[in-house]
Amino acid sequence: MDEFALIRQFFTQGPTRPDVSAGIGDDAALLQVPVGQELVVTTDTLVAGRHFPDDAAAFDIGWKSLAVNLSDLAAMGAEARWVTLALTLPTANESFLREFARGFFALAAQEQVALVGGDTTRGPLSVTVTAMGTVPTGQALRRGGAVAGDDLWISAPPGDAALGLQIALGQWADELPDSLATQALERLHRPTPRLALGLALRPLASACLDVSDGLAQDLGHLLAASGTGAELDLGLLPQSPALRHIDPAFASVFALTGGDDYELLFTAPASSATAVQALGATRIGRITAMPGLRLFRDGTAVDMPLTGYTHF
Amino acid sequence: MDEFALIRQFFTQGPTRPDVSAGIGDDAALLQVPVGQELVVTTDTLVAGRHFPDDAAAFDIGWKSLAVNLSDLAAMGAEARWVTLALTLPTANESFLREFARGFFALAAQEQVALVGGDTTRGPLSVTVTAMGTVPTGQALRRGGAVAGDDLWISAPPGDAALGLQIALGQWADELPDSLATQALERLHRPTPRLALGLALRPLASACLDVSDGLAQDLGHLLAASGTGAELDLGLLPQSPALRHIDPAFASVFALTGGDDYELLFTAPASSATAVQALGATRIGRITAMPGLRLFRDGTAVDMPLTGYTHF
Repeated sequence: MDEFALIRQFFTQGPTRPDVSAGIGDDAALLQVPVGQELVVTTDTLVAGRHFPDDAAAFDIGWKSLAVNLSDLAAMGAEARWVTLALTLPTANESFLREFARGFFALAAQEQVALVGGDTTRGPLSVTVTAMGTVPTGQALRRGGAVAGDDLWISAPPGDAALGLQIALGQWADELPDSLATQALERLHRPTPRLALGLALRPLASACLDVSDGLAQDLGHLLAASGTGAELDLGLLPQSPALRHIDPAFASVFALTGGDDYELLFTAPASSATAVQALGATRIGRITAMPGLRLFRDGTAVDMPLTGYTHF
Repeated sequence: MDEFALIRQFFTQGPTRPDVSAGIGDDAALLQVPVGQELVVTTDTLVAGRHFPDDAAAFDIGWKSLAVNLSDLAAMGAEARWVTLALTLPTANESFLREFARGFFALAAQEQVALVGGDTTRGPLSVTVTAMGTVPTGQALRRGGAVAGDDLWISAPPGDAALGLQIALGQWADELPDSLATQALERLHRPTPRLALGLALRPLASACLDVSDGLAQDLGHLLAASGTGAELDLGLLPQSPALRHIDPAFASVFALTGGDDYELLFTAPASSATAVQALGATRIGRITAMPGLRLFRDGTAVDMPLTGYTHF
């Protein structure tokens, strides 16, 4: 089967949108960006054996390759609109393609994102998605907007994906009820991009990013971009049901340094606190003028090594 | 060295543009599409051992990964503006990265395209570029606009890249002067996206695409999209100096079925002929109402097998 037949069969599906003048089938897609809005663009690659195990379910690879990109749009407060998909796979395996497409389009349908272009090539399995959205000009959430005195927030408990990775590698499962182990694995394999939250935060947050490499490491990026520091209170950090089941010391490590959560980490002035709380987020600390990240638990300083995911 | 240091060191360079509100360094780029223009987006992947030899020069991989994407924008008549780069490589090899970046940015600077985002991951060598441009709304060149009676044109002689591939594989070099062999290799490794021509063709051409998989195969896509056929006169097909040096039968095979040329193949009404000719293109046939591609040479029908590049 040639490239064109493959693409046609599995990738001409999913949501259609009135802002797509031309999708798959020409040399390039033609798209309509509304007047008064900026285009928001991000690209992420998932490589077999690096970002997912070689035997990962094709459904999950499809879902996650889209989710991690939509998460970046969410972090900017963007409305997700379009994606392109560059899929490299060893063989034109029909069952892999069917399941991959099922996972990819399950999330695409949920978020009403249209697949508008792509390339299918033969080679070692990897997936690169480019996601595009829009935001009213000047209103994007950036990393650099935090100021001293802002509250620090997270959208949901971090660390489950890191625990899920350990479970996938054969560790920890004995210490957890099956239902909690399953939840952690689902958070690893099928993360939820927080698009609705990102939109709601646009008038509220001062800075935002998504947690992909670990809470501490990504918070470091936000602080560096903002030229500020932060005090993070471990006593305020929300704990998932799964993390509450394991040794608290390990739970803290997963929560602070585990990657792949794709929760939003953001700051907001104290005047926004009530509105932000109503969105379901949890306040975990505050921004300081003094640079650096300082950890506390119930008012007492805590010292622990903080190393997140490195891509190399 | 971590991902961020890598990206900073080699990929925060190249043209800057006033239509970039935010480039590399946040969760996503923020870009300004002019009012009255559509966004044009394309993605192509190059995989080591498939689209270039494992020992290809890093400069050429960088150049070509950008060139093949800009060529798709050219085929739409788009103005190239921005690109993202997803680079997967086995090791964070500094000399590879330096040479790759040198090739990539040589072309980016020539075409004033800004790198606005990317992802660097560890894995088997492959490169996915997403190129973005704009075109006045409704004025993009499409594949489906050819009508019976239109002339068929090509931007430059096809086939050199296919000959270059044979030379790279150790064939044919003995039959050519070194200067011509070098020319063919350069056409393979460092193709020229025909962006200026694409812009100039917007008011003139009725249909257009770029020749990546072979003239005959890509012409087939144009004819299918347009619901027409074509008569192609091999006597009109321009021949490169290199192809004039080899057996004419093989030269025709390279010209008609060789991939990787990245020339523009387009149609235009006879009333545009003078203007198109002035752009340096060559008329090679005409569009017919009768479907299918028919080959002629000096008025006599020619029969030859036509198979182009398949990605699988």
